[in-house]
Amino acid sequence: MTEADETERRKRGPYRKTGARRREIIAAALEVFSASGFRAGSLKDIGERIGIDPSTILHHFGSKEALLRAVLDDKIAQDTQSIPDIEELDPALIPRGLIELAERNDRRPGLISLYAVLSAESTTVDHPGGEYFRERTARTRRDFRTGFERMQQHGLLAPGVDADFAATSTFALWDGAQIHWLIDPDSVSVTETLRRHLRLITTVTEL
Amino acid sequence: MTEADETERRKRGPYRKTGARRREIIAAALEVFSASGFRAGSLKDIGERIGIDPSTILHHFGSKEALLRAVLDDKIAQDTQSIPDIEELDPALIPRGLIELAERNDRRPGLISLYAVLSAESTTVDHPGGEYFRERTARTRRDFRTGFERMQQHGLLAPGVDADFAATSTFALWDGAQIHWLIDPDSVSVTETLRRHLRLITTVTEL
Repeated sequence: MTEADETERRKRGPYRKTGARRREIIAAALEVFSASGFRAGSLKDIGERIGIDPSTILHHFGSKEALLRAVLDDKIAQDTQSIPDIEELDPALIPRGLIELAERNDRRPGLISLYAVLSAESTTVDHPGGEYFRERTARTRRDFRTGFERMQQHGLLAPGVDADFAATSTFALWDGAQIHWLIDPDSVSVTETLRRHLRLITTVTEL
Repeated sequence: MTEADETERRKRGPYRKTGARRREIIAAALEVFSASGFRAGSLKDIGERIGIDPSTILHHFGSKEALLRAVLDDKIAQDTQSIPDIEELDPALIPRGLIELAERNDRRPGLISLYAVLSAESTTVDHPGGEYFRERTARTRRDFRTGFERMQQHGLLAPGVDADFAATSTFALWDGAQIHWLIDPDSVSVTETLRRHLRLITTVTEL
């Protein structure tokens, strides 16, 4: 290690440490908010998971609301329903892309629970996640519509199905199936329900 | 009023009063739990709506959990997704029955919010509504399946659609669309989404 490196390490050390601590708090908050929701999940519970005081959390984030925003902005939380490059993907591969995403979500119930619980809770009065979930829902529906419009242009939607209905119904069915899966994991497979829905509304049968 | 009537009135008065007070508390709790969820909705908020002390609520219900159960057991809360006589209804009229129910639900966002918020919240650890929502979800799916099985026997399901998928997808799409409607009422019509879905999975086109 050169002297310059050492200086750099010393200089950036505290910032690196701050970054690591913030990530640790966000991970603990994600667990607590997934398990209890935002309103009932307390800073005390979050702190206890990683052995720190609630005041330390406030030092890093300022408020419980700001911590929620940080959790929601965390990139893991953002990709539960967005297909990368939906604007460039071969339209015939879009249904497959959605199913792969659902398969990934099957393996991360904590994140799905965070999303399902907070999006429902966000519809209650003065919830700090209200704006986030309104925007996220609008963006997801828009992404879905873009994808299905491209499929429509290539004649890949079933007769009687347009891009708007394909987007709205797929998004609703997906979120509803996720809630039912969280309520009783043995009673419904999100991936299978989505697969059969996509077979019905598109002409792509190999799914 | 005869003397016997008067005796009867005096005797039953306090009970009638208790019943009225209980109904008043349940109505206020429904409003508060719809607006804030169960965990954040407090007995204090509920009491303030009707000008009583939280201790009076506890006197009538014993605990906040027992109050939640009373709200959920209240018959209004039970019929958000059950079609009367689905076992006897003309199978061709089942889709129309579902749509009429969705139209009714459009006019009671408070109740839909209660259901959506509490069913998502109930998936969190140790929630007193967990068992209720597991049972309710199982029962609703069973009712839907019974209805679609009867349609299937009469050749009223679309090609490639069986009763199981019809039930699972309709239930999921309905609950998901309700959440999206609560998040942004202008972006989605639950009734229209359901109508188009039912046109797709059944051969009943006049909906």
